[in-house]
Amino acid sequence: MDSNCIFCKIIRQEIKSYKLIETDTVYSFLDIGPLNEGHALIIPKYHGQKIGDIPDEYLHDVLPVAKKIAKAVGCTDYNILQNNGKLAHQEVMHVHFHVIPKDENGGLIIKWPTKKLSEEQFKAIHEKILAKLEN
Amino acid sequence: MDSNCIFCKIIRQEIKSYKLIETDTVYSFLDIGPLNEGHALIIPKYHGQKIGDIPDEYLHDVLPVAKKIAKAVGCTDYNILQNNGKLAHQEVMHVHFHVIPKDENGGLIIKWPTKKLSEEQFKAIHEKILAKLEN
Repeated sequence: MDSNCIFCKIIRQEIKSYKLIETDTVYSFLDIGPLNEGHALIIPKYHGQKIGDIPDEYLHDVLPVAKKIAKAVGCTDYNILQNNGKLAHQEVMHVHFHVIPKDENGGLIIKWPTKKLSEEQFKAIHEKILAKLEN
Repeated sequence: MDSNCIFCKIIRQEIKSYKLIETDTVYSFLDIGPLNEGHALIIPKYHGQKIGDIPDEYLHDVLPVAKKIAKAVGCTDYNILQNNGKLAHQEVMHVHFHVIPKDENGGLIIKWPTKKLSEEQFKAIHEKILAKLEN
């Protein structure tokens, strides 16, 4: 836990939140800057900026809790999003997963500019990643 | 498993993929329509369109595998994204999690049009969701 982190303060209930589900390892609540009604956040009870900083045991409840929240919100279409780093739109530097209902009234807006890679480029990228995975 | 699903075929290795990590419950590989180099997908070995359709035991390895892939790709900034439903940009109807590196050369483009809600609106939404969670 980080004493200056706003999400650590929410977990310790030093700052009020519209709490949803809490387990031994995660805490969830309504986002106060929502993209749509029911937009929720799930945070591990472990301070770290990026998902790579969080021990696996603090991640296990995240997706089961996301499922329960989406069901309770009653949205049929929705995005689950976790941003790592400022370039990737992270604003609070404590790992958080968004559950964002999507309908005609609101939600996440995405653009999807795909790249064309040759088979040789794919093979080279693949080999480079596999080599790192094996180390 | 669904015999007509392209991702089920990839899991059964009936269709070739640039495979990364496989566990008892998930399979991961390079996205062939990448937003950036190293863009990967992680899919549960259980056919279902939306995360709500997937048993929790098929979700437990997803985020630990995403961590390993991001580390091996070597990206510092990246998004983890899972889209549920056509309105939310889902294109293949088998649950999949994107790990998308973000840098000056590419990645996910997001727009974030937040809504202003009053305290009364937040309270009403919160109570409605809590009532469903308790049922």
